[in-house]
Amino acid sequence: MSRAINLNADLGESFGPWPMGSDDALLAVVRSANIACGFHAGDPLVMRRTVRAAGANGVSLGAHPGFPDLQGFGRRQMKVPADELAAMLIYQIGALQAIAAAEGQTVSHVKPHGALNNMACADAALARVVAEATAAAGRDLILLAPACSLLAEAGVKAGLQVGLEVFADRAYCNDGQLVPRGQPGAMIHDAEAALAHVLTMLERGGLVSLDGSLLPTAIHSICVHGDGPQAVASACRIRDGLTAAGYAVLPLPAVLGQ
Amino acid sequence: MSRAINLNADLGESFGPWPMGSDDALLAVVRSANIACGFHAGDPLVMRRTVRAAGANGVSLGAHPGFPDLQGFGRRQMKVPADELAAMLIYQIGALQAIAAAEGQTVSHVKPHGALNNMACADAALARVVAEATAAAGRDLILLAPACSLLAEAGVKAGLQVGLEVFADRAYCNDGQLVPRGQPGAMIHDAEAALAHVLTMLERGGLVSLDGSLLPTAIHSICVHGDGPQAVASACRIRDGLTAAGYAVLPLPAVLGQ
Amino acid sequence: MSRAINLNADLGESFGPWPMGSDDALLAVVRSANIACGFHAGDPLVMRRTVRAAGANGVSLGAHPGFPDLQGFGRRQMKVPADELAAMLIYQIGALQAIAAAEGQTVSHVKPHGALNNMACADAALARVVAEATAAAGRDLILLAPACSLLAEAGVKAGLQVGLEVFADRAYCNDGQLVPRGQPGAMIHDAEAALAHVLTMLERGGLVSLDGSLLPTAIHSICVHGDGPQAVASACRIRDGLTAAGYAVLPLPAVLGQ
Amino acid sequence: MSRAINLNADLGESFGPWPMGSDDALLAVVRSANIACGFHAGDPLVMRRTVRAAGANGVSLGAHPGFPDLQGFGRRQMKVPADELAAMLIYQIGALQAIAAAEGQTVSHVKPHGALNNMACADAALARVVAEATAAAGRDLILLAPACSLLAEAGVKAGLQVGLEVFADRAYCNDGQLVPRGQPGAMIHDAEAALAHVLTMLERGGLVSLDGSLLPTAIHSICVHGDGPQAVASACRIRDGLTAAGYAVLPLPAVLGQ
Repeated sequence: MSRAINLNADLGESFGPWPMGSDDALLAVVRSANIACGFHAGDPLVMRRTVRAAGANGVSLGAHPGFPDLQGFGRRQMKVPADELAAMLIYQIGALQAIAAAEGQTVSHVKPHGALNNMACADAALARVVAEATAAAGRDLILLAPACSLLAEAGVKAGLQVGLEVFADRAYCNDGQLVPRGQPGAMIHDAEAALAHVLTMLERGGLVSLDGSLLPTAIHSICVHGDGPQAVASACRIRDGLTAAGYAVLPLPAVLGQ
Repeated sequence: MSRAINLNADLGESFGPWPMGSDDALLAVVRSANIACGFHAGDPLVMRRTVRAAGANGVSLGAHPGFPDLQGFGRRQMKVPADELAAMLIYQIGALQAIAAAEGQTVSHVKPHGALNNMACADAALARVVAEATAAAGRDLILLAPACSLLAEAGVKAGLQVGLEVFADRAYCNDGQLVPRGQPGAMIHDAEAALAHVLTMLERGGLVSLDGSLLPTAIHSICVHGDGPQAVASACRIRDGLTAAGYAVLPLPAVLGQ
Repeated sequence: MSRAINLNADLGESFGPWPMGSDDALLAVVRSANIACGFHAGDPLVMRRTVRAAGANGVSLGAHPGFPDLQGFGRRQMKVPADELAAMLIYQIGALQAIAAAEGQTVSHVKPHGALNNMACADAALARVVAEATAAAGRDLILLAPACSLLAEAGVKAGLQVGLEVFADRAYCNDGQLVPRGQPGAMIHDAEAALAHVLTMLERGGLVSLDGSLLPTAIHSICVHGDGPQAVASACRIRDGLTAAGYAVLPLPAVLGQ
Repeated sequence: MSRAINLNADLGESFGPWPMGSDDALLAVVRSANIACGFHAGDPLVMRRTVRAAGANGVSLGAHPGFPDLQGFGRRQMKVPADELAAMLIYQIGALQAIAAAEGQTVSHVKPHGALNNMACADAALARVVAEATAAAGRDLILLAPACSLLAEAGVKAGLQVGLEVFADRAYCNDGQLVPRGQPGAMIHDAEAALAHVLTMLERGGLVSLDGSLLPTAIHSICVHGDGPQAVASACRIRDGLTAAGYAVLPLPAVLGQ
């Protein structure tokens, strides 16, 4: 199974009367969905519809909890006390678990959203809160975290199975951090270049930085994005390129041997 | 087990910096807690603390979902489409289920809150939405509903075990409806009178109206309230009076033979 | 000025990361904007941008307050006590007034949104709450209300100048009510038909029902919609048709002689 | 008028069914009220009632805008982009202005709440956003800011009249910062000690630190708190002590010569 790989994307980000994203098209491409849980996007009905559509496409379900900041789409940093954040995370994960169960499905992974994810990747204490809250919501949940991040480390320490992801459209620094948006080369807009970036990392077995340095790590999943005019076409190209290169593109639990 | 009875109350109705109710005192009296789930009251941290405190007191847990109306405390009627309401209910129940599980506990019943409860007791279509959403969140969940209500009927039709409750402090009409607030005799403020009202209904085996008529029904639970200066003292008096009359005051699942 | 007429539309209905509508295109067509105030749609930044864009197009500003129900887009009926509703309305109008003032502009009218508008058109007590709250927020505010509605009547009683509107794309019953959606002929989807409908009502001087009956009334404004693929094209056709028929299409205050 | 001083407190912090504070008692003591505007506390009806009660007591009105974080009571740091924050502030101030106008009153000052206030006192860019948004909402609004803070400076730069406040119950560092809570001597719990602290600062003409150093500054207002069992009694003691020492305790505009 060493040639198995997952493709994941954020989905279910519509809210009330406001649609967002190209969920139908993306669900035919990715194998795992990070579903917004109502705090930064999504609402109960959107969640239920997304769960149904994911199930119909054989896409595995992940909870995508965020800060309680609908207007800011969970992208604004908030300082939330640890016990409160833990409770917020369990609340959101549980809400999706029940909606999944009502549709005969299971939530298999958790991936934090936006500012929470960014903060948890760089702050060991916050990472621990996220990992332990995930474990509290289900000891068999997979924590989907950026490869080489403090969040991934915290998941291991919390006894969770950790899915390690890389970003198809982002360049890396030598230390494994993303090149900050705005710096030259940070974003990889071209689909062929993104595919090449991904294949290089998979073949070399780790994060490959802008100057070609390797930071070895297991890689279980490729994160693609659904926004932007070329997003779905780009995700398709990456999926097709992975398949052509001999990779089996599978739901996250299958990649992790569940 | 024919002399077993449950006492339930709404709990966990604090929100953020705003406390509400006398939860600590009530948890020593009631045997089942209806815990607000964040839509009309409560927040994730309040829910977690309430679950912990209930567990420490041997009080069984119920989800108390409401309309998404924090400012109106879920007491304002809202017309919510059926599929949206169902998703909202599963969402709230699931959030509490996960928080309970994180504390090693289980949610055993569901009781809708405020305007939603009132509307579902009088509208068969809405009652069905509530009952089926409860079943979707867990086929072994008990639906706690007013005796002789359409909500109780809907619970039976949905295949749920139904806990039938009466109100200690409210008078009944001959048709089993509550005497509307504001009409003479609607409210039973005196604790001795409330206890006598409850004991009469239990002994005669049904709802006893203002004029003494009997509407036969099983009764599994007595609903008491936590607000008001005499609330806790009144709840204590009812609990003590039930015990003195030979009733075992037990958590709802035990009364229903689970 | 007897041949002056206004064209109004709901604008500023985006929220946080979620865009809605074709505001830029519509602002080149309509002469008055009903701007969402953050309770059912819109947020402070969206409001400010919409105010700026309206000002740049010479479009007069209206507050478009709604129920506090973002997820339901203010389309769900809510029973809100009168004093609370009045305060909510003044709050929303005031928020827009300050944002307009910060941009050197003025809010000249108020039009309630969605379920609140529908309910206030059919319920005299609610209509009075809306009219009096509008007067409390500014005695010189115009209340923009459907012609022949209880809301329009309440506006007059409250001493407000009332702008009477008709809908370009909706058929009328003989009593002045809209033909309910879903009934045959309720919606006028064709732009030419909508224009003819509007011109007939203006020429005959009142609401013209499906069977051709006339309910005489002044008409100050035509409401057009911004959603749907043909919306902007349809609004343009109506504007152009009105101009060709000799009407001056003006901001609402100008039509009312302010 | 050199012996005039103002007493201010945060008021109107109830929300929906949840009361907070001792507003009635405090309104008989303070001369200016900082009224929550619905984002971190307060709701439209609470705002209207607070405005009425303040007016009945001759207490001047201030808007007390905060971050959009009801559950966190505006005490959690949030990173909000400048244009969005400015719009949020104008929105909140305008909402209160309209409610005040509906009651025949006027908002005369603005004081940011909680984390926003703390952040704006220590961050010149954020202070500028707050000051300019205040000016945009009304060029004659007074900005009420801690003496010697960056927020006070920004108010002056924005052309606003600035009211400089000190805290009765907090000790100061030599640089004018508050001694952080948790450090020895940070809080002055005793009413007599708080009064002495205030009188010393007024007599010496500036902030007096824990070691007795003086940082000269004008002082226009004393901030007292409404929470805690001794709060009202302590506020009374300070008011009475100021009066006994020959100070006229007046609304903020009067102290500033308006």
